[in-house]
Amino acid sequence: MNCLEERILKDGVVKEGNVLKVDSFLNHQMDIKLFDEMGAEFARRFEGKNINKILTIEASGIGIASVAALHFGGCPVVFAKKAKSINLDGEMYTAEVESFTHKNINHVIVSKKFLSSDDHVLIIDDFLANGCALQGLIQIAAQAGASVEGIGIAIEKGFQQGGRIIRNLGYQLESLAIVDGMDAEKGTIELRQQ
Amino acid sequence: MNCLEERILKDGVVKEGNVLKVDSFLNHQMDIKLFDEMGAEFARRFEGKNINKILTIEASGIGIASVAALHFGGCPVVFAKKAKSINLDGEMYTAEVESFTHKNINHVIVSKKFLSSDDHVLIIDDFLANGCALQGLIQIAAQAGASVEGIGIAIEKGFQQGGRIIRNLGYQLESLAIVDGMDAEKGTIELRQQ
Repeated sequence: MNCLEERILKDGVVKEGNVLKVDSFLNHQMDIKLFDEMGAEFARRFEGKNINKILTIEASGIGIASVAALHFGGCPVVFAKKAKSINLDGEMYTAEVESFTHKNINHVIVSKKFLSSDDHVLIIDDFLANGCALQGLIQIAAQAGASVEGIGIAIEKGFQQGGRIIRNLGYQLESLAIVDGMDAEKGTIELRQQ
Repeated sequence: MNCLEERILKDGVVKEGNVLKVDSFLNHQMDIKLFDEMGAEFARRFEGKNINKILTIEASGIGIASVAALHFGGCPVVFAKKAKSINLDGEMYTAEVESFTHKNINHVIVSKKFLSSDDHVLIIDDFLANGCALQGLIQIAAQAGASVEGIGIAIEKGFQQGGRIIRNLGYQLESLAIVDGMDAEKGTIELRQQ
């Protein structure tokens, strides 16, 4: 069991509606020592891949991606921004992303200056559930002509379809923890053996 | 001249309206090696301070704060969230913050679980102009009874009032680069000698 899995079992809180609260160490308060270990684990799982840039999405992906980048030679991190309205001046790659948590649609944008066909990208994010955010990032990488060398996720909700879809598309998707079930009443979390 | 100052002169772009674009290395694409050097410089400037937590604000502060935390013993980072509406259930510290860039008012929130009177906080952010975001973070630290041991900023606009106000209040405010003037037509940036 890796450090993130142990931490989820220790400090993750299950709420009604299949919500897993990990805000004490992952996406509000951030345990930087844990992030450093997670970065090392990502580097191990994507060893040998030719990665020159990390792509993530604001806000919760940024901390994990930034610390992980130190394990990939200090490569630059580009974070996609969520925009209510888009300035369609041709300077941005854009994708539509539906939010599971907030039940709305965001546009996600990345400046064309920072992603091109020269880039070999590792996509990193904190959560994978239905996969909408991730599909937006993949779409943006495709618009840029960048190759997606891999996808690193902190926590995947294995009982939702996002991970299966992404793996079926042929991507190397590595989730440090996969939650296969939760019970809000009992407060239990079932992790997939990896 | 430190690494950030050199980089601003090399890659910063001046736009009309006193806008300094540093999105190629600071707040859209992030140069993680530069962040690592900036973190080391913050650690040097706040040496001897008893810091157990870093407080920042989404989204652009998160990367800088996360990498800097590795130079402060891997201490946890809490990022304040921008919220359109607040759920006043008493579980959040809240402050109002006016955005210079977007000309609107956001509420900034931090869960009460992650900041208390036991905390000795270093506040980190990417930009300081009129100081509204920073005042919001200071207000949140005060609500928690946490002590603000120092404030680390990447780029201060020295020709706006934020820095002077914060220093007059007695805080140790360290800005790695202070821009005293910009000329959009000539594309020149004047940095304060430190």
